[in-house]
Amino acid sequence: MDAARQDEIKRRFGTRVRELRKARNLSQEAVALRCGLDRSYVGGIERGENNLSLINIHRLAEALGVEAGELLG
Amino acid sequence: MDAARQDEIKRRFGTRVRELRKARNLSQEAVALRCGLDRSYVGGIERGENNLSLINIHRLAEALGVEAGELLG
Repeated sequence: MDAARQDEIKRRFGTRVRELRKARNLSQEAVALRCGLDRSYVGGIERGENNLSLINIHRLAEALGVEAGELLG
Repeated sequence: MDAARQDEIKRRFGTRVRELRKARNLSQEAVALRCGLDRSYVGGIERGENNLSLINIHRLAEALGVEAGELLG
């Protein structure tokens, strides 16, 4: 899998997280607190910078009130 | 999120990967080759030992011919 495809996967994931967070009127800080993650890390996820782990995907899904599978394309 | 819940997430993911792999009559070696991952790493995923990354979740999904979201509960 080439670097461009990896970037696309991370960007798409981040866009989905941002859309769901905004639809719930949550700040990055609020989501970070719910997840137990740093706010800056959540910001990086939304910008498509982070290759986060299975566990953190589930943490985010719980914070956003969705099934983890809904965060992935 | 406590350790028991993290273990449950990893075990459930691994069980799903194993089910899909066997349904396709693929060996761990074949999946590992398709993913560009080590066979032992794929074995660890199936045993629920690995907290794999977003990119590797997508690599596995491509190797198994499913959408990445289908691998998560």
